[in-house]
Amino acid sequence: MDYGAASPVDPRVLEEMMPYFSDSFGNPASLHSYAFEAQRAMERARGQVASLIGAEPGEIVFTSCATESNNLALIGAALRYRSRGSGVVVSNIEHISILNICKELSKQGFEIRYVPVDRDGIIRLDRLEALVDDETVLVSIMAANGEIGTVQPIREAAEVAHEHGALFHTDATAAAGKVPLDVGEVGVDLMTLSSNDLYGPKGVGALYVRKGLRVKPLMIGGGQENGMRSGSENIPGIVGMGKAAEFAKKEMKSEAERLTRLRDRLIKGITEEIPASYLNGHPKRRLPNNANIRFSYIEGEALILSLDELGIQVSSGSACAAKTLEPSHVLLAIGLKHEEAHGSLVFTLGKGNREEHVEYVIRQMPGVVRRLRSMSPLTPEELR
Amino acid sequence: MDYGAASPVDPRVLEEMMPYFSDSFGNPASLHSYAFEAQRAMERARGQVASLIGAEPGEIVFTSCATESNNLALIGAALRYRSRGSGVVVSNIEHISILNICKELSKQGFEIRYVPVDRDGIIRLDRLEALVDDETVLVSIMAANGEIGTVQPIREAAEVAHEHGALFHTDATAAAGKVPLDVGEVGVDLMTLSSNDLYGPKGVGALYVRKGLRVKPLMIGGGQENGMRSGSENIPGIVGMGKAAEFAKKEMKSEAERLTRLRDRLIKGITEEIPASYLNGHPKRRLPNNANIRFSYIEGEALILSLDELGIQVSSGSACAAKTLEPSHVLLAIGLKHEEAHGSLVFTLGKGNREEHVEYVIRQMPGVVRRLRSMSPLTPEELR
Repeated sequence: MDYGAASPVDPRVLEEMMPYFSDSFGNPASLHSYAFEAQRAMERARGQVASLIGAEPGEIVFTSCATESNNLALIGAALRYRSRGSGVVVSNIEHISILNICKELSKQGFEIRYVPVDRDGIIRLDRLEALVDDETVLVSIMAANGEIGTVQPIREAAEVAHEHGALFHTDATAAAGKVPLDVGEVGVDLMTLSSNDLYGPKGVGALYVRKGLRVKPLMIGGGQENGMRSGSENIPGIVGMGKAAEFAKKEMKSEAERLTRLRDRLIKGITEEIPASYLNGHPKRRLPNNANIRFSYIEGEALILSLDELGIQVSSGSACAAKTLEPSHVLLAIGLKHEEAHGSLVFTLGKGNREEHVEYVIRQMPGVVRRLRSMSPLTPEELR
Repeated sequence: MDYGAASPVDPRVLEEMMPYFSDSFGNPASLHSYAFEAQRAMERARGQVASLIGAEPGEIVFTSCATESNNLALIGAALRYRSRGSGVVVSNIEHISILNICKELSKQGFEIRYVPVDRDGIIRLDRLEALVDDETVLVSIMAANGEIGTVQPIREAAEVAHEHGALFHTDATAAAGKVPLDVGEVGVDLMTLSSNDLYGPKGVGALYVRKGLRVKPLMIGGGQENGMRSGSENIPGIVGMGKAAEFAKKEMKSEAERLTRLRDRLIKGITEEIPASYLNGHPKRRLPNNANIRFSYIEGEALILSLDELGIQVSSGSACAAKTLEPSHVLLAIGLKHEEAHGSLVFTLGKGNREEHVEYVIRQMPGVVRRLRSMSPLTPEELR
């Protein structure tokens, strides 16, 4: 139940990729027939990814991962359109890559403003309106938060950005393939997509760049990807991401319904069976696969290790920040205390999870929590 | 015979990668058992890549491709050590990514100096000595040129750099796995490696960063790869590159001998059978798999297309620049005229090539060349 950290490649996706490793292994930039095959495969994949978000194929730039897409979007757009202004506005629950990119932009003279969220993790639109002004070059608000699952009002956020002539980027790593996203409807200028979060291979991502816009390339070289991302293309990876996007589009609705049922059963089962356990994030406006639950008087790390022994894999926050031992910045941003944040667990459900897995977790967790609480001097007598 | 543009993944490498797509698919940053497996696989691969070049595992940073490694090396080192000086020295036959990165560094205030090469494509060490001074922060000379095959005296070049306190980077994309490279012997500070050129998967590369050095990260985020390259790691790709490096080390000697025989037969067969055809690059100090031959009174593009119809795939230069229709900057740098550069073909041999392939090419080429020459008004009567 840690699909947010990493996902297995869908076997149908892997099958699609296989011929491109050792048979159709051409470089799309060559002039001979091997190149044409690679070129065709890449353009088909571009169309599949575009279709998932209602974009045109020419608006998709393939990258090596969501982190690269975030770097390309923020640094690339901020530098390219610097003459429009030097203000950048992001939420304070963005992925660590966005927040660290902002620190770098700040060193380069940009003024970064952070939009707070409410206790459910929804960005404060009133505060966003107050923070965006005519000096703002870029607003970046994630489509959904991978830790607490909250789905953001990005259409409204994009409107605020556009009223002031700023560009709008959304990191859709956690949201794509889980909730419908249409770049036309939402009014997005730049959107980050991850392959692995769609059950595609690791090592590939994409950035949607609205037609007519350009970003300053992060990687300079042969001018691939319309000059915005140089480097010989990872054709098997790109083919895999394309196929994964195709399945995500086709199966999103039924899978989201299935996951929502499992998620709600998991939340209800745990919070009813275990005293002093509470849901983090919005009860309704959340990703179908996300349950973030906090347990008083307990350390998340200890819970993770104990559950791992029982064959249950979960996370204490974003895997990207798992080893810092710092409490999740997202949980602090929704107003939790340090010890509450430390006692929270993230369950991210996925294709492999069935009802029996959820029931198993609900059966096992109370004993684990009780045992760990019994070892803590802070636990009140009635919870031991 | 276009292995320089793209290589098939070795089936043994692909087999090694397979479990990491859908079974052992963990994120090394997680805290549970899936993570440990991913972590172990990644560290094993790091050791395998390090071993190919005589480095320590901790000196290998995994990236998404050789172009990224070149960007990270040049931009990352130039910015990180800017206080040492703002001079950068490169050869004028570097890969297009290096040359384009230099243009960007130039915009950022660095002074770029270009070392010329002689008619065989060997860098002029005397000129290098004259160009490097105490203001030089970085010297970058490729280990071997992928177009004309020339192997460079990088040990001597590194010495020149170090005498002036400059760092030395080498782009070993074309050389690694073909000729022995030992970072200790050569005295390299930074070295670019490509996975696909070792018969590993596309979408992964590495940068050797000598212990004690750091480069400014190009991609900012969760702090993976010792803070020098953020983004969730492409575990199957990394595992593949590791295995490919292991095979490259083990099989380099015998494969280089085999390819050298094929290469020499190819060069001899073509230049003897076809009048007005000449070898480009150094006759001896060249990659075992490279033959670059120019044909007077003919266009390389026309040759490529005609040969493709006969099942022969070759290149007119670097695939990365194939579509620009500009003559190769490498061929111009060794003193060829525009029309000579346009009439040149690059053969890059590889694992799949056998003697019968070479003989087939030698049999087919004279007819193709004669036919194309007969269509050109420039062709002298005796060659028609």
